[in-house]
Amino acid sequence: MALNYPNRKQVVHKEANKANLGMDLETMINESNEYYLNNNIAVIHKKPTPIQIVKVDYPMRSKAVITEAYYKTPSTTDYNGIYLGKYIDFEAKENHNKTAFPLANIHPHQMTHLENIIKHGGIGFLIVAFNKFNEYYLVPFDVAKRFWDNAYKNDERKSIPYDVFKNECYLIKEGYLPRLNYLDVVKKVYIKKDSD
Amino acid sequence: MALNYPNRKQVVHKEANKANLGMDLETMINESNEYYLNNNIAVIHKKPTPIQIVKVDYPMRSKAVITEAYYKTPSTTDYNGIYLGKYIDFEAKENHNKTAFPLANIHPHQMTHLENIIKHGGIGFLIVAFNKFNEYYLVPFDVAKRFWDNAYKNDERKSIPYDVFKNECYLIKEGYLPRLNYLDVVKKVYIKKDSD
Repeated sequence: MALNYPNRKQVVHKEANKANLGMDLETMINESNEYYLNNNIAVIHKKPTPIQIVKVDYPMRSKAVITEAYYKTPSTTDYNGIYLGKYIDFEAKENHNKTAFPLANIHPHQMTHLENIIKHGGIGFLIVAFNKFNEYYLVPFDVAKRFWDNAYKNDERKSIPYDVFKNECYLIKEGYLPRLNYLDVVKKVYIKKDSD
Repeated sequence: MALNYPNRKQVVHKEANKANLGMDLETMINESNEYYLNNNIAVIHKKPTPIQIVKVDYPMRSKAVITEAYYKTPSTTDYNGIYLGKYIDFEAKENHNKTAFPLANIHPHQMTHLENIIKHGGIGFLIVAFNKFNEYYLVPFDVAKRFWDNAYKNDERKSIPYDVFKNECYLIKEGYLPRLNYLDVVKKVYIKKDSD
């Protein structure tokens, strides 16, 4: 299924964000992952954006140029890898709202994928940025799932209120190296818990 | 880094293969992964092909069309996921040669990536198809690594001979569901070994 995404508004917004408001969440996570890799802490990569390729030209014999392609709906999350022998899987989302995180930012496939990962013994979560506050939260899957089910099964509110981030999620400290030490939070929340 | 890949010859070849010689390796593995997922056996996905997007048009407000893009060199392997709580990572390659598998089919990044995965406690390997024989092998990383080092450090032969597949690798049975039960081999080679 081809998805009309990102639309023009989102692209413009992202560029403005990069120029004016500091580093975007994806860049912060990618830089952190590079640090983790280079320092033998973890191997976590962003998956490439899924693209439906329709037409490829060969202006020269050895050179392929894709001349028609479309964004596809992702069937999994953006990031996965291994940390302390554990399979890690997460989706990262920016949020420019101050009072809540709209669930429309998450694809249903991604919730199903995270649920499957956890069922098979992996660690799955979301990272949500509240850009207006420069705050970054690790959202345990069960918290996201509770709001997701209330929204789509019980037709309740379609967002997670900011208070829930404060009270039930974990703030990730912004630093220099790594830029966003989310694995430190993963260790505290998931790995130590396992060995208690 | 943009890579001129696949070239015309490879694309034509792949199409011919699909039409005349049965299912290609990627399709076989993807179908097997779908079976594993639907039957709660494992969650393993192919990563999207990495594409460098240069130009995006918006013929309609809501519709993004990529009009210029290039294939990029992959920095990791094609497949990863979780099986029996273990992180699984592998690269799959077809081979139309009868006597050996040329190492040029593997990117140096991919060998480094698999080595890192194993260092962090994951399970990493190659799947190589000998298309002429309809044979599919799981190649343990250490076997591939031995030939890789001999080739690029000691300037010896740049391929793995067919005999090595017969003697040091594991034949994966072709079936109906799943089409290629490679996780059965993974279980025998890696998981049972761990608990001995």
